[in-house]
Amino acid sequence: MDLIDRLLRGDRRALARAISQVENGDPQARDILRRLYSYTGRAHIIGVTGAPGSGKSTLVNALAQEYRAHRITVGVVAVDPTSPFTGGALLGDRVRMRDLAGDTGVFIRSMASRGCLGGLARTTAEVVLLLDAAGFQRILVETVGVGQAEVEIARAAHTTLVVQAPGMGDEVQAIKAGILEIADIFVINKADQDGVERTEAALRMTLEVSELPSHHGRRQTIAKAQVPSRDWIPPILRTISTRREGAAALMDAIEQHAAYLHESGRWREREHLRAAFGLQELLREELIARLMAQLPPELIEAQVQQMITRTIDPYTAVNALLAAASPLAAVEANK
Amino acid sequence: MDLIDRLLRGDRRALARAISQVENGDPQARDILRRLYSYTGRAHIIGVTGAPGSGKSTLVNALAQEYRAHRITVGVVAVDPTSPFTGGALLGDRVRMRDLAGDTGVFIRSMASRGCLGGLARTTAEVVLLLDAAGFQRILVETVGVGQAEVEIARAAHTTLVVQAPGMGDEVQAIKAGILEIADIFVINKADQDGVERTEAALRMTLEVSELPSHHGRRQTIAKAQVPSRDWIPPILRTISTRREGAAALMDAIEQHAAYLHESGRWREREHLRAAFGLQELLREELIARLMAQLPPELIEAQVQQMITRTIDPYTAVNALLAAASPLAAVEANK
Repeated sequence: MDLIDRLLRGDRRALARAISQVENGDPQARDILRRLYSYTGRAHIIGVTGAPGSGKSTLVNALAQEYRAHRITVGVVAVDPTSPFTGGALLGDRVRMRDLAGDTGVFIRSMASRGCLGGLARTTAEVVLLLDAAGFQRILVETVGVGQAEVEIARAAHTTLVVQAPGMGDEVQAIKAGILEIADIFVINKADQDGVERTEAALRMTLEVSELPSHHGRRQTIAKAQVPSRDWIPPILRTISTRREGAAALMDAIEQHAAYLHESGRWREREHLRAAFGLQELLREELIARLMAQLPPELIEAQVQQMITRTIDPYTAVNALLAAASPLAAVEANK
Repeated sequence: MDLIDRLLRGDRRALARAISQVENGDPQARDILRRLYSYTGRAHIIGVTGAPGSGKSTLVNALAQEYRAHRITVGVVAVDPTSPFTGGALLGDRVRMRDLAGDTGVFIRSMASRGCLGGLARTTAEVVLLLDAAGFQRILVETVGVGQAEVEIARAAHTTLVVQAPGMGDEVQAIKAGILEIADIFVINKADQDGVERTEAALRMTLEVSELPSHHGRRQTIAKAQVPSRDWIPPILRTISTRREGAAALMDAIEQHAAYLHESGRWREREHLRAAFGLQELLREELIARLMAQLPPELIEAQVQQMITRTIDPYTAVNALLAAASPLAAVEANK
C-alpha cells in the first residue's frame, strides 16, 4: 500500500517516514504534502509558548495525558530553535515519551531547526499538516516563545497558550509582555512555587494595560493583523504539571475556546491567519530556494569577498546576484 | 551640508534621522546605506544575548559606562522582538539613557521588529552600519537570545557574549544550551544572587561536553559553518551590573578577544561570516519585497481563500503566485 494511504489510515511508521522526508527536504515530501492537504483541517491546533524554565514540556505532557484519558488523540510537535547547535532535541523525545510510551493515540516529535532562517516555520506547519491528515484530533505545537519567529509559529494556531512560572523576573516579563497579547489562555505553571500570587497580579496588570486601544503599528504581513477579540476574555489558569494538577481545567478551557471560535465565527478568522501565514512562509522559502539553485556558489563568494574589502556595498551585491539569476525561468521549470 | 557628510562627522541628529529612515524603509535609506558602506568596517561589534531576566540591558549599560571611562565611543542597538505587539521599546530608551544622558560619546537605539519575519536581522545590520560609519568604536548589539533569529543576529558580531543569571532553571538552561556554543565570553550576571556557584558549575559542565567533536548537522547558510576556534577558551566572568561590578574585567576580556581575532587571522573569518549573513538576509528581503510589489493583493487573498476550503494546496498556490509574477522584470526595473 502506498505511503499516503497508510498515513491516512493512521499508520505510525508511514507517518514517521513522511515526517522524516519533510524534515530532510526529500523530493517526494512536496508531493506527499500536496496530496494530503485536502484531508486536513480537522484537527484543533494548540500553540504553547513561554520562556525557557516555565516547564512547557511537562505541561504539554500532562495535557496530552489528560486528552488521552478522554480518548482524544494527540499529536505533539516540539520546536526547539536552540537545538541545531548541539543536537539537544535528542534528549527531548526520550524524556517525553516515558509517560506516554506504547499509546498509539499519541505521536510526539521534537524538531530542531536544520534549515535556513525562517525554514522552521514552514517545516513545523508541514509536520502539523501530516499529523492532521493522519487523524490526530488535537495537535500541540510547543515553541520557546521569546524569539520573533517562534512566537509567530505558536501564534499560527487555533488556540494559543502562554505559559509562565513564578519567580522568573516578573517585572521583566511584564515589560516584555508583548507575547501576552497573542494568548487565548494564560497558564501559570509550577504554581506550587513561591511568588505565584505576584506572578498572577503582574499578569492581570499587564492584561488590563493591553485592553487599552493600541496605536502602535502592527507587523505587516500578508495576513491581516489579527484584531484581539475582546468578547473572549483569556482566563488565567494555574497548573502543577509535574503532578498533572490543573491539567483537566486547562483541557476544559481549551475546549471552551474551541467552541467559542466556532460559535462566534472566529474559527474562520484563525483559519485565514493560519493559511496566510503558511502561504507567506512557503513563498519566502521557495523564492530563496529557487534563487540559490540558480546562483553559482563562486559568484556569491565573490560578492562576499568584495563586501569584506568594502569595494562593493551589499545592495549592489544583491542587485548583481538577482540580475545574474533568472527567477522567472526557475518558476517555469518548476511548474 | 548633506546628511551623509554630517553623519560621517558624527552629527547625532543626522545619525538619528538616517536610522529612522532605515527603520521606516524610506526610499532614501537605501541610497544612504550604499554611499556609507565604504566608510564602515572600523567598529568592533559585540553581540550580547541571553534569556529574559538575565539583566542584559543593565549589563550593556554598565559596559557602555566602562568604555566611556576609557574615552572609547559606544553605540548600542537593543533588539526587542517582542515589542511590536505592545510597543515595549518605548520604555527601554528612557531607562537606558538615564546613566548616559548628555554624553555625546554614546548613542543608544532600541528597535522593535515592525517588518516581516527576518526583516529584523536586516534592519539591525543596517543600523549597525550607520553607527559604524558615524565613527562609534564599539557597537553593542543586544538581543533576547532564545529565538533562532535573535541568536543569529547576536552571532553576526565580532565578539559574542552569552549572559546568564543564577537560579533561572539551570538544568533547563544547560539542556537548551545550544546558544552557548556561539559564545566567545560567558557572563554570569546578578552574581550576588543565590546559586551563582551552581550556575557556573552547570556552565562549565556544558562547556566540557561541547568540546567533544559534534557529528550533528549545522545550519546550512550561505555562510560557511563557523568552526569554533578552540585556541580561544571562552572565559566565564561574573558581574553585578547594577553596581557596575565586573564591568572593567568584562571590557578587558572583550578587548583581549578582539586582539586575539586580529593576531590569529580569525578577524577575517568573522568578517566573512558577517558579510555572508548580511548578504543572505538582504537577498531574502529583497526577493520577497520585489515579488509582493508585483502581486495584486486580491490574487493572494484568492489563494488563501481556496487554501481555507482545501480546494487548493499551499504548494500549488505558491506556484500560481510565482507564475503570476515576473521577478526578472522586477530585477531589471530596480537596477
